[in-house]
Order: sequence, then C-alpha cells, then structure tokens
Amino acid sequence: MSSHVYKHIELTGSSTESIDDAIKKAVERAALTVHNMRWFEVTETRGHIENGKVSHWQVTIKVGFTLDEV
Amino acid sequence: MSSHVYKHIELTGSSTESIDDAIKKAVERAALTVHNMRWFEVTETRGHIENGKVSHWQVTIKVGFTLDEV
Amino acid sequence: MSSHVYKHIELTGSSTESIDDAIKKAVERAALTVHNMRWFEVTETRGHIENGKVSHWQVTIKVGFTLDEV
Amino acid sequence: MSSHVYKHIELTGSSTESIDDAIKKAVERAALTVHNMRWFEVTETRGHIENGKVSHWQVTIKVGFTLDEV
Amino acid sequence: MSSHVYKHIELTGSSTESIDDAIKKAVERAALTVHNMRWFEVTETRGHIENGKVSHWQVTIKVGFTLDEV
Amino acid sequence: MSSHVYKHIELTGSSTESIDDAIKKAVERAALTVHNMRWFEVTETRGHIENGKVSHWQVTIKVGFTLDEV
Amino acid sequence: MSSHVYKHIELTGSSTESIDDAIKKAVERAALTVHNMRWFEVTETRGHIENGKVSHWQVTIKVGFTLDEV
Amino acid sequence: MSSHVYKHIELTGSSTESIDDAIKKAVERAALTVHNMRWFEVTETRGHIENGKVSHWQVTIKVGFTLDEV
Amino acid sequence: MSSHVYKHIELTGSSTESIDDAIKKAVERAALTVHNMRWFEVTETRGHIENGKVSHWQVTIKVGFTLDEV
Amino acid sequence: MSSHVYKHIELTGSSTESIDDAIKKAVERAALTVHNMRWFEVTETRGHIENGKVSHWQVTIKVGFTLDEV
Amino acid sequence: MSSHVYKHIELTGSSTESIDDAIKKAVERAALTVHNMRWFEVTETRGHIENGKVSHWQVTIKVGFTLDEV
Amino acid sequence: MSSHVYKHIELTGSSTESIDDAIKKAVERAALTVHNMRWFEVTETRGHIENGKVSHWQVTIKVGFTLDEV
Repeated sequence: MSSHVYKHIELTGSSTESIDDAIKKAVERAALTVHNMRWFEVTETRGHIENGKVSHWQVTIKVGFTLDEV
Repeated sequence: MSSHVYKHIELTGSSTESIDDAIKKAVERAALTVHNMRWFEVTETRGHIENGKVSHWQVTIKVGFTLDEV
Repeated sequence: MSSHVYKHIELTGSSTESIDDAIKKAVERAALTVHNMRWFEVTETRGHIENGKVSHWQVTIKVGFTLDEV
Repeated sequence: MSSHVYKHIELTGSSTESIDDAIKKAVERAALTVHNMRWFEVTETRGHIENGKVSHWQVTIKVGFTLDEV
Repeated sequence: MSSHVYKHIELTGSSTESIDDAIKKAVERAALTVHNMRWFEVTETRGHIENGKVSHWQVTIKVGFTLDEV
Repeated sequence: MSSHVYKHIELTGSSTESIDDAIKKAVERAALTVHNMRWFEVTETRGHIENGKVSHWQVTIKVGFTLDEV
Repeated sequence: MSSHVYKHIELTGSSTESIDDAIKKAVERAALTVHNMRWFEVTETRGHIENGKVSHWQVTIKVGFTLDEV
Repeated sequence: MSSHVYKHIELTGSSTESIDDAIKKAVERAALTVHNMRWFEVTETRGHIENGKVSHWQVTIKVGFTLDEV
Repeated sequence: MSSHVYKHIELTGSSTESIDDAIKKAVERAALTVHNMRWFEVTETRGHIENGKVSHWQVTIKVGFTLDEV
Repeated sequence: MSSHVYKHIELTGSSTESIDDAIKKAVERAALTVHNMRWFEVTETRGHIENGKVSHWQVTIKVGFTLDEV
Repeated sequence: MSSHVYKHIELTGSSTESIDDAIKKAVERAALTVHNMRWFEVTETRGHIENGKVSHWQVTIKVGFTLDEV
Repeated sequence: MSSHVYKHIELTGSSTESIDDAIKKAVERAALTVHNMRWFEVTETRGHIENGKVSHWQVTIKVGFTLDEV
C-alpha cells in the first residue's frame, strides 16, 4: 500500500432521511466518475429547517482515492 | 435572500434514540418560541454512558433564523 | 460530583451498520476492562469505501471515566 | 470599563455591494433592538454565486454589548 | 437529564481581582435574568494593562441553561 | 435542493485593487470551466508588499458547485 | 533529557475553590499511580453552576511523564 | 529566494474607512522602521461600534520580512 | 504574479524512506498530469507501523498551481 | 483610538504561586522595556510537576501595545 | 478490518539526529509494552536549542493499536 | 527555571536540502542576534515547486528565548 499516491476531493451530500444517508449519497454519486475511492472523513454536518422541522441533512466529506500508476 | 439579516443561537438536544433524533428534538423545542429558523450546523456530538452502554446522545447545534424586517 | 478526578481515553469503533453503532461498539468493548465510564465526545468520523459504497464506519471518541478513590 | 458584563450575539448580514457593507447591514439591523453594542469580530465570510459572478456577500460577526446594571 | 434541551449564551465578565472572580461576576450578573444555568466553559482569557500592570481581567464564558418545558 | 450532490474546489484570486476584487477574479476565472457554482467561503486572506505598500491582495476561497445528475 | 520517551495522559480535576486548585487535585490524584510526571498543559476550563453561582471548577489537563528505560 | 530567513511580526491597523484601509495603514506604519517586508496574512478582523454603527475597523495581520545577511 | 488565479489540490504521498521523500513522491506523481505547480503546504503527517517499527510514511500536502489564461 | 497601529508580542511568565501571578510577572518584566502596553490574551497555560506536585505555572500571553507616531 | 476497536495513546520521542528518528524512537520504545500498533499521526514537532544550534528534536505522535478480542 | 520570563519570535527558514535543514538554518541565522534561545516549535511546513519537483523547503518555527534579568 505504501507506493500509492492518493488524491482528496471534498463533497456535500444531502438526504431527507438521515446523516448516514447523506454520506452514502455523496459517495455513490462520486462513484459514477471517480474510481478507486478508499476512505472518507466527515468535515461538516449541517441541515435545512422548514416549518420548525429538519427538512434535509447536508454532510460534507473529504474522500481519498488512489491515483493510477501512469 | 440577500437582504435578510440572520441571527444564530446555540442549542443542545438530547435523545435516548440516536444522534439524528437529538438534533430533531433541539430543533423542535426551539420552534416553540423561535420563528423562521433556516439552517443548523452541528458543533459538538457527545453522550452519557451508564453501566457500560450509551444511555443518551447529546448534540449541540448552531441554528440560524431570519430577523424580521422592523 | 465535584470531588472526583476523571481520566480520558481515546477509542475508535467501527461498524458496517451506522455511525451510531460504531460508537456503541467502542463503548461496549471498552466496558470490558474500564469501569465507571461517564461520558464520551466524538472527535472524528471516518469510513472506508469499497466498490463505490460505504463499507464500514469508523468513529473516534474520547471517553471520560472516574478514577477510584485510593 | 472593568465593572461591566458583556453579552455576545452572532449575526449574519448580507449585501450585494461588498464585504464591508454586509457587516454594516448586520450591525445596523441589530441596533434596532440591541443597545450598547461595543465591538464586533468577523467569524465567517461567505457569498452566493449566480451565473458565474458573486451575487451577494454574507458575513457572520460576533457582536459584544454591555448588559445594563440591574 | 436526557429529555432536556439546553441553550448556550456567551458572556464576558471583568474583575480587578482575578481570573476566577471575573468568571463569578459574569455568572452572577447573568443569574439576575437567566434561570436554570447548569455549566460554563471558558472560551477566552484576556485583560487590560495600565502603567505596566494588569489593571483588570476579562474572561469570556459560554453558559448552558435548561429551556423550560412548554 | 435536497437531492443534489455538491463538489468543493479551492482557488486563490489576486488583485491590485481590493480584497473583494480578488474574490471576484477567482470566481470569474473559475466560471470559464466550472458550471453551476453556488457559493463560496473565504479561507485565507493574504497579500504581497513592495516598497512598504500593499502591492496586491491574494484571497483563497472554497467554492461549491452542483454535480450534474448522470 | 534528549534520550527519553514521554507518554501523555488527559485528566479532569475538580474543586469548589479555584481553577488552580482543580489542577492541583488532578495532578496529586494521578501521582498516586503515575511516576515521573514532568509537565502539564490545560486543554479545557469548565465549571458547574448551582443557584446562580459557580459551585465547582473542572479543569482538564494533558500530563506528560517519562517512560522508564526497559 | 531559497537562501533567506524571514521573520514575522503581528500588527493591528485601524481605519474609519474600510477593512482594506486598516490593513494598508498597518503596513505603511510598519514600513517606517521595518525594511524588506514581503507579504502579510490577515489573522483577525474586528471593529468598534458607536451609536449603532461601525465607527472603525481593526484588522490584525502577520507580516513576513527578510532578515539581512550578516 | 498578481494577475493569476491559482487552484489547490490535496494529495497524500507515501514512502518507506522518510517524511521528505513521501512529499517528493506526491509532487512528482502529480507533475505527470498537473502543470505549473508552484508551492505546497503540509497538512498531515502520518505513518503505518508493522512489527513495532515505522513501515512507511504518509504525508498529505495541499498543492497550488496556476490556472492557464483562457 | 482608531488612528493607532498596535504591535503584538508573545511572552511566557512563570510563578510558583498561581496562574494569575505568572501573567502578572510576564507583564511586569515586559514593562521594563516596552511602553504603552494595552491588553493581553492568554494563549497557553502549562506548568511543571516535581515529586507529584505542581512546582510552577507557565502562562503564555500575547500582548498588544501602541506604536508611537513617528 | 471493520470489526476491531482501536485505542490511541500519545507519545513524545526525542533524537539528536532528525525529526524522522525521533518518531522511530517513540514507536520502538512503545513496542516494548504495546502490541498491535497500526498507525501514527504527528501532532507536534518541537526541539531544544543549545548554544544557538538545534540540540535535539522532540516529536509528539498519536498511535493507534488494536484492542484484543476478549 | 521558574523565575524566568521568555519571549517568542516566529521565523521561516528555507533549504534546498530537507525540512530538518530549513529549521537549522532559521535557528542558526537567529543566533547571530538573539541570545539564550531555548526551544522551538514548528508551526508550518511549506515548499516551492519548480519543473514538477520540490525546489526548496520553507519551515516556520516559533522560538522561545530567556529575557535577561534587568
């Protein structure tokens, strides 16, 4: 594992369901164009409020993925 | 949206259920006296332990709401 | 409560289920050898990604427990 | 000055003009209901983008004011 | 304790005596209008200097109090 | 708004005019290749000094934009 | 001094007297089981409030001590 | 450029005009006694409020300058 | 230099040799696809341990590069 | 007050007595060579431990003073 | 890997040679009593100066190790 | 040691060789005019990149030295 170089990107996912689901949505959307994602770290947890209730969750994650050997 | 002024308050909600539920409880209690809440941001996630198990979750959030035009 | 001295330890729990479950697993494993745990605080929320999906959650907590009177 | 107690509130002002103007708007709106404001500190500078240009500035400030003697 | 919602306010107390006394003054002034205060956390310790000596201490604290059930 | 995934990029703009202008320059340059930018947050404000005067301002911002549905 | 390895532990002491006394209590309790403590650093200063007054102080410190040569 | 050693100093400038002007005033005052200043970084933006309006801006900067070869 | 816009990317390099070598590896891998890199800043230094020894170093850097005029 | 430029210096004072006394010692020593000191801010509170007791307190402060008009 | 619980400890190693060597010394000393160490993270890099030269390096690391199944 | 007052200065050293060497260069240059330096702490590690390679390292340190008794 020691010979790889990793790149990090930062994403925000949102969900009407839960904090965990907002993270999953960000990872799954990113997987459509980024390969070899290896880990994530939560950097911010926010949400929107409508009519006095949480209407959706917004979670920002930093994702690390392996750069291909060239 | 650009002409509003927002005020922020900081609240801690607690729940025996989950992190998400502690946030919902803080928002819903605040809604009894604060109108026009728009968003929240989690600033601290803690909990109490009894008999070697998580007994309840305590989550602190900063909430932003619109100040009425005067 | 004011006469106690508390010690803090830092643990990372992991779970394929959820953020909340990773915290519970860390607390319950620690309870096998540490007594009188009183509270925890989340210091980092991370996870691993396999095949474009969250494969497991890793949550780091700081736990405080009462030192016995000697 | 040493015998006063100060309270802090956090506000976000916005402006289509400039960072400085967003701060002035937050202070002037707060002055309608809060007396004896003494200083502010900028805690966050953000903005919205529309059609590839900055459409308005949003600046969050912490404001300190003197509590009246009771 | 788990069913309460707490609100936080931030205050600066000052004293010509000591750091500890500045904190006590902030808490005691706040007690005139805020009930059910439960804990505080020091967020900043400053002071003024006159003629090459500390003339008074200024300590900023965040205070948490229980919101009444409605 | 809740179903989108956002990506963040970090940019530094510079200007001989002002802090605000350095931010505008970064946003407008990025707009040439990035679509759907929604907000920015200032993360660092610096500048260069020549002959004892500010010669230009350098402001770093984090920009969030919507990822297209695929 | 350069050939030692130090370990750090984190403790919270409490006192009804003062901030300084809470630190002393944490250090003196730890001295019953930890030898060769060399320095401490304050990481958090909190307290409890009862009936509108500070009832006790809680100070968290990180303590460094020398690991014995083995 | 690689063989120089730089020293940093921290200054606060103030202005009744603007944030940018407070920074310029700090740099220009420092230039009277410090030579070879190369860059600055803003570390704090504050201001004073009088009669419900911003009366002056106070900006703290860290300034780097080249130490002369000896 | 004042008219450029810079973009930042975050990379993690690894090496069995040293901290410095892990940084060099990240920069040299990035140079295969990114042109006009100008500076880096270390944001995290970690490593893996096998059999009680450091097996490899992992250093995360933020890299700034000039965006081409368009 | 708005037309001054302030400079900041960082000092560590120590005392066998108390945290407050360590701060006073730093201010009073600095007053021998620095004039027009106006305020301080505590940035670090540490201490040394000998024979299981606090032997002396070490407090680091940032001090601001007015630069003379030239 | 997802079913383990990790514990973190914080250590400071020192060396007259280099930063890297101070980290190695901390890890190798810890290995005498702690098994299953998996990773480390540098949290502070300091050193002592004697006669105007670096006399030794002191690096603080946080180390994570696997808790055995019980 | 407890009766001294220390002052801190911040320096950036650079080197084409290594991180460690950049620190040594900053300390040795400072020693030409500052006496009684006792310790340093690294606050920032950066570098310049030319032609896709690290061209030199720039490390910023805070240095503490004893103020002479007056």
